[in-house]
Amino acid sequence: MTGWLKETGPEADIVISSRVRIARNVEGVPFPHHLIEAKGGEIANMVYDSIVGANSGLKEDFKLISMKELDEINRFNYVEKHLISPGLAKNIDIGNMLLNSEETISVMIHEEDHIRIQCLLPGLQLNEAWNTADKIDDLLEEKINYAFDEEFGYLTACPTNLGTGIRASVMVHLPALTLMGYIQGVLRAAGQIGLAVRGIYGEGTDFLGNLYQISNQVSLGITEKEIVSNLQDVTLQIIEKERRARENLLIGKRIELEDRVFRSYGILKNARKITANEGMQLISDVKLGVDLGFIEGIALGKLNSLITMIQPASLQKHFKTPLNATERDIKRAELIRNTL
Amino acid sequence: MTGWLKETGPEADIVISSRVRIARNVEGVPFPHHLIEAKGGEIANMVYDSIVGANSGLKEDFKLISMKELDEINRFNYVEKHLISPGLAKNIDIGNMLLNSEETISVMIHEEDHIRIQCLLPGLQLNEAWNTADKIDDLLEEKINYAFDEEFGYLTACPTNLGTGIRASVMVHLPALTLMGYIQGVLRAAGQIGLAVRGIYGEGTDFLGNLYQISNQVSLGITEKEIVSNLQDVTLQIIEKERRARENLLIGKRIELEDRVFRSYGILKNARKITANEGMQLISDVKLGVDLGFIEGIALGKLNSLITMIQPASLQKHFKTPLNATERDIKRAELIRNTL
Repeated sequence: MTGWLKETGPEADIVISSRVRIARNVEGVPFPHHLIEAKGGEIANMVYDSIVGANSGLKEDFKLISMKELDEINRFNYVEKHLISPGLAKNIDIGNMLLNSEETISVMIHEEDHIRIQCLLPGLQLNEAWNTADKIDDLLEEKINYAFDEEFGYLTACPTNLGTGIRASVMVHLPALTLMGYIQGVLRAAGQIGLAVRGIYGEGTDFLGNLYQISNQVSLGITEKEIVSNLQDVTLQIIEKERRARENLLIGKRIELEDRVFRSYGILKNARKITANEGMQLISDVKLGVDLGFIEGIALGKLNSLITMIQPASLQKHFKTPLNATERDIKRAELIRNTL
Repeated sequence: MTGWLKETGPEADIVISSRVRIARNVEGVPFPHHLIEAKGGEIANMVYDSIVGANSGLKEDFKLISMKELDEINRFNYVEKHLISPGLAKNIDIGNMLLNSEETISVMIHEEDHIRIQCLLPGLQLNEAWNTADKIDDLLEEKINYAFDEEFGYLTACPTNLGTGIRASVMVHLPALTLMGYIQGVLRAAGQIGLAVRGIYGEGTDFLGNLYQISNQVSLGITEKEIVSNLQDVTLQIIEKERRARENLLIGKRIELEDRVFRSYGILKNARKITANEGMQLISDVKLGVDLGFIEGIALGKLNSLITMIQPASLQKHFKTPLNATERDIKRAELIRNTL
């Protein structure tokens, strides 16, 4: 199972996962949206050889997976596990990914850029994620000439990624700040210091399940380490705010909070039809209940993985059959009941 | 425990209880709202002697309870058990009741009329309730001169009770007719043939928990047996309609129905705060689930008694302490969890 899902990391009560991705392009080759199939395969092989090659010294067990060889359910299952982007999943012609067996390191080939190295770890492990992604980047740079400009740094298909080509992000669970109505202030403050806040499945998605993805918006004119340490600092502040909000809820609204948590728990364990959105909200309540000690005997990792397991493609992969929306709601409820 | 609550009777899946009450007044004595305390006590003793007297032949174990000797919680606990009316509970000066140990027969003294004999039985037992009430009426008539007019029959404080002085009623649980939106038609049809439909706690109360009290509106120009058999016939028709609606739901909306039932069950077993109104709706769903075989291992009688147990006075009686509204919501949830 996917590394960031099966385990929990530091600050697991609030931080679900940490991610660093590095965007790189190969010099002299058109960006992926202008690339034809034959040329696309070349870069995939270059990446594979650079990382898996005899001299790389990397102990990880990687495999190269082309989008073409996967059916839609499997492609979007990787999206739901945050290992690839929806853009790559749709790029059936030349999309490829290199993935380690732990599913903590993925290299997308021919997403928006030629190469996107990603490291995704459970809990607050931004430095660890950065170090790992950086190591992969170094391996690639030994064999590949990156498109690089003295003034702009690493060149990318979209100007927002110019410079370091780095995006660092954390996925945080902020139910108390949300419940108390403080979240808007937190998000505004994050925006003012150059951070973007998105829902769990990227730009334009709602903040389902009280989950927020916080990432740097600027990658130019700042070092990689600054990007990572800025986000780390802000995340620690947000953790502190969320913890304080939880304490305040416990003091002022304990019974209301218990009621909410246990109702959600009762619905999750009994419902016969659940949409993904409702499921995420209910799981959020139960996660909070586990964090606060209201509910015992449920591992946080189980709840984290449930968030992904109830998504459409993961659900169909689990039940090994295509399901329409109504069937998914029914099977989703079944899966949740069996898991809890 | 109260007879109609502890057991279930015929057609228990739909009919909670059957009731017959007979209104009588003593000749030559002003109606209760003009009565002074001393005179009030006289009638209570007459009733007691008539029923409990050595020659009555009645095996039932009765006791005379004056409203004055009960605190508010105990008075309204009897109201919630449908053994007395709110009017009697408020008539502390001269209100009395005679009650058998099974709590199936109660005689209210100085409610709106001097004497109101009531028999309340579980399930559809209108004839049995009528026979029992009639027997008590005969016993009283041996010793008491009833106010009677050749033209109008038994005289009562309110003209709507003139004639036979009888009101027969059933309390029915009609969740499927309600869910499918057919209930308005059923209620209209009942109205057109001279029946009144009220909520569980009488006129002006909502149809909480999908419970409907159906009773005759006319007691003049019709015999007692006709009143009882008319209501019996209509009740059998309504039972038939509700059963058909349940079958249709099972065919067309089984999963939605299961989902509703189990969600309500999950909430009942887990919530930490429940209002009486919400509790009644949730219990209604679970009752339907038990009737349809979705949920096993819960006796219908337990759910029936829960409806009464979660009412404000019963709750305070159970926990042996006065509780404000918020405390009641919390204790109600506790009681429900412990019961299920």
